Amino acid sequence: MDKEKQFVTELADMQTEFAQWYTDVILKTDMVDYGPVKGTMVIKPYGYAVWENIQKYLDKEFKKQGVQNAYFPMLIPESFLKKEAEHVEGFAPEVAVVTYAGGEELNEKLIVRPTSETIICDMYSKWIKSYRDLPMAMNQWCNVVRWEKTTRPFLRTSEFLWQEGHTVQATPEDAERDTQVMLKVYSDCLRNLLAIPTLTGRKTEREKFAGALATYGMEAIMKDGKCLQAGTTHNLGQNFAKASNIKFLNKEGVLEYGYSTSWGVSTRLIGALVMVHGDERGLRMPPNVAPIQTVIIPIASKKEGVIEKCEEVKSLLENQDIRVKLDNSNNTPGWKFNEYEMKGVPLRLEIGPRDIENGVATAVRRDTHEKVQLSLSNIVEEVQNLLNEIQANMLKQAEENFNAAIVKTDDYNKMVNAINDKKVTLSYHCGEMDCEDEIKQNTTIKTRVIHSYDDTHKCIYCGKPSRYRVYFGKQY
Amino acid sequence: MDKEKQFVTELADMQTEFAQWYTDVILKTDMVDYGPVKGTMVIKPYGYAVWENIQKYLDKEFKKQGVQNAYFPMLIPESFLKKEAEHVEGFAPEVAVVTYAGGEELNEKLIVRPTSETIICDMYSKWIKSYRDLPMAMNQWCNVVRWEKTTRPFLRTSEFLWQEGHTVQATPEDAERDTQVMLKVYSDCLRNLLAIPTLTGRKTEREKFAGALATYGMEAIMKDGKCLQAGTTHNLGQNFAKASNIKFLNKEGVLEYGYSTSWGVSTRLIGALVMVHGDERGLRMPPNVAPIQTVIIPIASKKEGVIEKCEEVKSLLENQDIRVKLDNSNNTPGWKFNEYEMKGVPLRLEIGPRDIENGVATAVRRDTHEKVQLSLSNIVEEVQNLLNEIQANMLKQAEENFNAAIVKTDDYNKMVNAINDKKVTLSYHCGEMDCEDEIKQNTTIKTRVIHSYDDTHKCIYCGKPSRYRVYFGKQY
Repeated sequence: MDKEKQFVTELADMQTEFAQWYTDVILKTDMVDYGPVKGTMVIKPYGYAVWENIQKYLDKEFKKQGVQNAYFPMLIPESFLKKEAEHVEGFAPEVAVVTYAGGEELNEKLIVRPTSETIICDMYSKWIKSYRDLPMAMNQWCNVVRWEKTTRPFLRTSEFLWQEGHTVQATPEDAERDTQVMLKVYSDCLRNLLAIPTLTGRKTEREKFAGALATYGMEAIMKDGKCLQAGTTHNLGQNFAKASNIKFLNKEGVLEYGYSTSWGVSTRLIGALVMVHGDERGLRMPPNVAPIQTVIIPIASKKEGVIEKCEEVKSLLENQDIRVKLDNSNNTPGWKFNEYEMKGVPLRLEIGPRDIENGVATAVRRDTHEKVQLSLSNIVEEVQNLLNEIQANMLKQAEENFNAAIVKTDDYNKMVNAINDKKVTLSYHCGEMDCEDEIKQNTTIKTRVIHSYDDTHKCIYCGKPSRYRVYFGKQY
Repeated sequence: MDKEKQFVTELADMQTEFAQWYTDVILKTDMVDYGPVKGTMVIKPYGYAVWENIQKYLDKEFKKQGVQNAYFPMLIPESFLKKEAEHVEGFAPEVAVVTYAGGEELNEKLIVRPTSETIICDMYSKWIKSYRDLPMAMNQWCNVVRWEKTTRPFLRTSEFLWQEGHTVQATPEDAERDTQVMLKVYSDCLRNLLAIPTLTGRKTEREKFAGALATYGMEAIMKDGKCLQAGTTHNLGQNFAKASNIKFLNKEGVLEYGYSTSWGVSTRLIGALVMVHGDERGLRMPPNVAPIQTVIIPIASKKEGVIEKCEEVKSLLENQDIRVKLDNSNNTPGWKFNEYEMKGVPLRLEIGPRDIENGVATAVRRDTHEKVQLSLSNIVEEVQNLLNEIQANMLKQAEENFNAAIVKTDDYNKMVNAINDKKVTLSYHCGEMDCEDEIKQNTTIKTRVIHSYDDTHKCIYCGKPSRYRVYFGKQY
């Protein structure tokens, strides 16, 4: 028990030092490390395995939507970025630039992609001739670079991994539908895989993507009450089509500009996972995304038959595609309990001589700390059931926190106080950029996503007629 | 038939203009396109799907070997590259360099990774403390940049996709074993998935990787007799461990440098696939790697029940994880036959009213052009059997070409003539770098991999005692 205590106290207190707790957790569980260049991260196997599970889920969903994977060059001619006026303004301050290559100074500087709209639209403009070529819908899994001043692993780093989907449609309605469908794919992924409920909706003009007509966002609420923008989809209208000359012959034989969209989620999601589910003992992984769903820990492992039984259970679970690890190292069981608790493994099975005698394994749930006896003769089904239960319970817990975090208020001071007290508010706003800017400058509070359009109320800040009801909060 | 001819003649003649044929095939089948920056490529969905199938195969094999995926930063401090003397000499001329980022000139220039030995070894040096941390074995799927003067899609491009595995072992024997095991994983992948036989063996001193103790190569022979280095594994000895200070406490409590390896294959493999199997009609995809394994083409598709039957067969095949496409477009059947032949789809099913009446589908093999009737009542099994047969036959055909391309000769003029006549030779060589260089300068012929060590013969060029028997050839 001493050891357990010692282990736990290695993490900062999440109530009072949430930021330090986050850093402690991700470093100590071997999810990530700092890279040698300031602002970069190394995603270690335990973190990368989470990303692989997210990829597997989303890749399948994208393909169901008729999206195909492709790969576009990372280095973009500087002139491309400048094609769309808002886009260059949004990204120019944070790009990394290749100025020489192959021993020679380049004639045109090359931008390391911060996002690929410009280069993908350039290629699309060559490939798209007629309405028969539409919709064109491609996705790429890749790295992007955005040189940020303040960085934190997973949340904001100079380089990160993501997917970016890009579609071109023949009508504005089809483009708008793509942005809605993909937003749903994302929020379903968070709910079903990561057990994370989200606020979804349109972003305000102030908060939309550089160059978009409309941006939709999916926001998760962390345990410290701050929001994390976990994914966005952009209806780009004809902005990029005009900038890149994407024209198609429509059914009437008339040349028209296409309507494009883009949408992406990144390794930020791993940060969300940590900050939505983690507790004072470390990570808590929902089974569906957990790199290790069940860890088996032999008790009195030198005793006859213990290791054999553990191996047998491991094989049985593996055969049903349960991600299982048997830790047969020399560390004490207590040390192992702590380690896998901190790593957030959803289910621990302890198997010792007495368990075997009784035909059971002792299971300990990470989500409730509950101990239950599982029958060894029916171990696969019982583990599967428990994992499903844990998944459902973790979503329920996350939803309770989520709902408790949202405060409806029409009073500005109450709003500021609530948000400073780790809440998100739902309030009316006039929709004016200047008004939104003033709130942000005074408080660092920003709008998250629009809840609904409603002009029958007053703006929480300036008192003018409202345009919409919108979520306000602080953000990562 | 006119249409068919027209289609076929869009490709250059592969006998007389192999290079142009290659370019025609990869562009016209929508595998790839040129990127906007000279020397870059866009991998289009039909090409990328091949890469995904290669990834799926290899990723599973790596994990079986205990290798875990991770991700390391792409931008490497310039000083890192200089840590290993041979390494910097090998890569410095072809790196792309980021000199400013975030609007500021960088204090230290950053290299876009041409390969990640230096940054991965730097991280390993922090993570490895004791023999208990070994072996450390990680892989990453990523992009790399090497600024090449002469480029061709898939074969040599400024940016390409690859995987790079990096292990550290406690003993030289374990490191050597890693390089051998991974070479076997690679050559099995080529044989089992891509139906490509390879020459495997150690590279000569002249041809080894910059900074390695020993490099092992896997070489495929293209239809024009040139070799393509399709994968390499490197035993780095303690070179990088010393350069990066990777030290571990061994079991005796003594600090030692680790022994590292690295190994990689890239999107080059797609080029090999094209040039080993392609024919005058275009691509030929071995079923195991084919993005589309079976295409269904409705005949007289307006007739009652035809589309329904095609859809039914499609579902049946899909349910057994056969990658199937139903082309129900307005193009004529003849046009479709040509298109999917050019795309190399291994099996075409034609289903028309008469077929349905007779309870059959007409199957046409891409490898033999053979037409066979398959029973609709047993279609899944018959398609599966045929796909297996095609896979086996394509490997057999490739092996016949491979064996016919290798000429044993101890006469220098015969060697040069044979290689100019699209062959690879197996000949004795003294093992001196200068001698190897002279051959290369005179003929562009290089050594490929060492067949066997043998000092009982004479060098084919200088006549001094042989050191080994080695394959010679021209290369991509």
